[in-house]
Amino acid sequence: MTERSKQPAGPYSSERGEPQRSADLAGFVALSLLPIHTWRDIGERLRAGDAPAVALDRLLTARWPLEPRKFSDLQAAAAAALGQGAERGLTPIAWSDAAYPPALTAIIDPPPVLWTRGSRAALARPAVAIVGSRAASPYALDVAERLAADLAARGLAIVSGLARGVDSAAHRGALSAGGSTLAVLGCGADIIYPREHAALARAIEPDGLIVSELIPGTRPLPRFFPQRNRIISGLSRAVVIVEAGERSGSLITARCALEQGRDVLAVPGNVLSGRNRGGHALLRDGAKIVERADDILEELNEVGGGAGSAPPAAVPCADPVLACLTPGEPCDLDGISERSGLSPARLLPRLFELELQGLIRRAGGGRFVRFDRTC
Amino acid sequence: MTERSKQPAGPYSSERGEPQRSADLAGFVALSLLPIHTWRDIGERLRAGDAPAVALDRLLTARWPLEPRKFSDLQAAAAAALGQGAERGLTPIAWSDAAYPPALTAIIDPPPVLWTRGSRAALARPAVAIVGSRAASPYALDVAERLAADLAARGLAIVSGLARGVDSAAHRGALSAGGSTLAVLGCGADIIYPREHAALARAIEPDGLIVSELIPGTRPLPRFFPQRNRIISGLSRAVVIVEAGERSGSLITARCALEQGRDVLAVPGNVLSGRNRGGHALLRDGAKIVERADDILEELNEVGGGAGSAPPAAVPCADPVLACLTPGEPCDLDGISERSGLSPARLLPRLFELELQGLIRRAGGGRFVRFDRTC
Repeated sequence: MTERSKQPAGPYSSERGEPQRSADLAGFVALSLLPIHTWRDIGERLRAGDAPAVALDRLLTARWPLEPRKFSDLQAAAAAALGQGAERGLTPIAWSDAAYPPALTAIIDPPPVLWTRGSRAALARPAVAIVGSRAASPYALDVAERLAADLAARGLAIVSGLARGVDSAAHRGALSAGGSTLAVLGCGADIIYPREHAALARAIEPDGLIVSELIPGTRPLPRFFPQRNRIISGLSRAVVIVEAGERSGSLITARCALEQGRDVLAVPGNVLSGRNRGGHALLRDGAKIVERADDILEELNEVGGGAGSAPPAAVPCADPVLACLTPGEPCDLDGISERSGLSPARLLPRLFELELQGLIRRAGGGRFVRFDRTC
Repeated sequence: MTERSKQPAGPYSSERGEPQRSADLAGFVALSLLPIHTWRDIGERLRAGDAPAVALDRLLTARWPLEPRKFSDLQAAAAAALGQGAERGLTPIAWSDAAYPPALTAIIDPPPVLWTRGSRAALARPAVAIVGSRAASPYALDVAERLAADLAARGLAIVSGLARGVDSAAHRGALSAGGSTLAVLGCGADIIYPREHAALARAIEPDGLIVSELIPGTRPLPRFFPQRNRIISGLSRAVVIVEAGERSGSLITARCALEQGRDVLAVPGNVLSGRNRGGHALLRDGAKIVERADDILEELNEVGGGAGSAPPAAVPCADPVLACLTPGEPCDLDGISERSGLSPARLLPRLFELELQGLIRRAGGGRFVRFDRTC
């Protein structure tokens, strides 16, 4: 039985205090402390269903065979981080948590834990990222804010990076529409960078979420920002680039999105300012052109059968994974794995796709339900 | 023997005064007086090598069998137009004229005559059209002028419509670079519309050309402008749209270009103003995105083996038309038709393509030469 399928279904509060779960949480945090070159291995182990302590032990044995103390050191650091997180009002959401966003389980290097502040219901909404230049033109700020407001009004969560310029305009646009927005940070979720966005971050929390994979107290070092970008795209069905120069960091987010199989769209603009070189290069390479929110919604509908995840009226039923599920009956990963003959590592991305297509939904406790209305 | 292959090679001045040629010219003008629903038939007859009087007679017999006087009426009107043209300093360039631009012979509804003012050497250059909004933004004017200047500096002729806004900015840009530009009018070439562009038209003449298919004295009626657009694209290897709203006339030029197999490119811009709806829609449908002149030159190179028509170093020699030509030896249309088994109507567009690819060139007198350097 895998770790994921061990979790009971139900609200989170009821799961707190179980000793196994608490140990697991520390284990996921410990895994998250390992360096970047291990992240793909971690993702592989998590998808294979390893308990975090098992995954950690395997990784350490393979890569640091001469450092027997590393395991307990990491566990201690993780426990300290959990203490600090609790002190600072952060809620950790581990891989095994039913609130862990399914979209992130499909990326190759998922964070074992997300540290959050705010309303984690925001993670359940279909999301679109809007990112772009920090030194944005008034035009870009205007476009980002309008697109975010229009998408948020349609029920989509807006993901961005809380940076100056386009990012913060996107968050503000979502808020102006009474919508939900997620800010993924390149520092601990207890630290707001840049400082001037403290009020914005507070405004995000009631209906949205401040998110970081970095343990509480982590300072905003330059190397964290490109890494953070894979989470911005990983949380999202599509990434919209609003004004990106030739070396814009948002092009990293676009590349991550492509690697993760997410849509990349770009807003065109002035060709003389140089501010749109990056965005226009994406258009040249096949990114969809965005003039208004409808362009994004249409793209999502084409790919995912509805931005609001309403299941389509009729679908092909030749899908082998879908065929293993009885409509309306939740099934855990092990069960689907057994029936389909596919390993959990292969199943999870496929299940995520089916979810995006509106054919199944997550039922809590790592279980999946096929919609009745599908064929 | 076809009409085209009857012409002697050599400079035009030496051909003037030949009675047959003069009669032919009047015949082409008479054909040009027929209404738009006959233009495809006219093109077909011209490509088939009919002498203009023969083509005219066939068309009139088929379509106006009960109007026996129409032939002589048209001939008389043509003679009057030729007189008026001479009075007003216009030079007619008929279909059979070696200066008639080969690019235009490939369109389905070529004008039998072009009335011109200026330097007709401009017709021999590879050309790119730049068109767009009349009520253009300062941004669009700036972009159009820069693109035109950069392309003209590279030896390309810039084709446009002498309209307010983007068109005139394109002409000005070409002039600023000391280049050649062609203005295709929706009225007689002796009438400048809008009036305020009279000085611009005069500045175009020394190295460029004012062009119209309409007989001298024709007033600028609204219906002439969409018809004129097929000549703008027909003269050009590519059409670049700089700022076009949803109902912009330049979208007609883009559609003509697509029908004629020419490249369509568009400059992106502001998505909030509504000024770029048309251009962005073209990008969505596959038009190439233009930020600078190099983007256009690259596109021409990809399609045509070099904007300057330099033949490529090596090419496949499987082409049946190319195989009929001995490198360096000029051959007329009849000869190529006989060798290839293709009718002149089919051959001309193909020869035009080979010319665009830099594999053959026109040798005067309707003859074609294959380049030595090709395989």
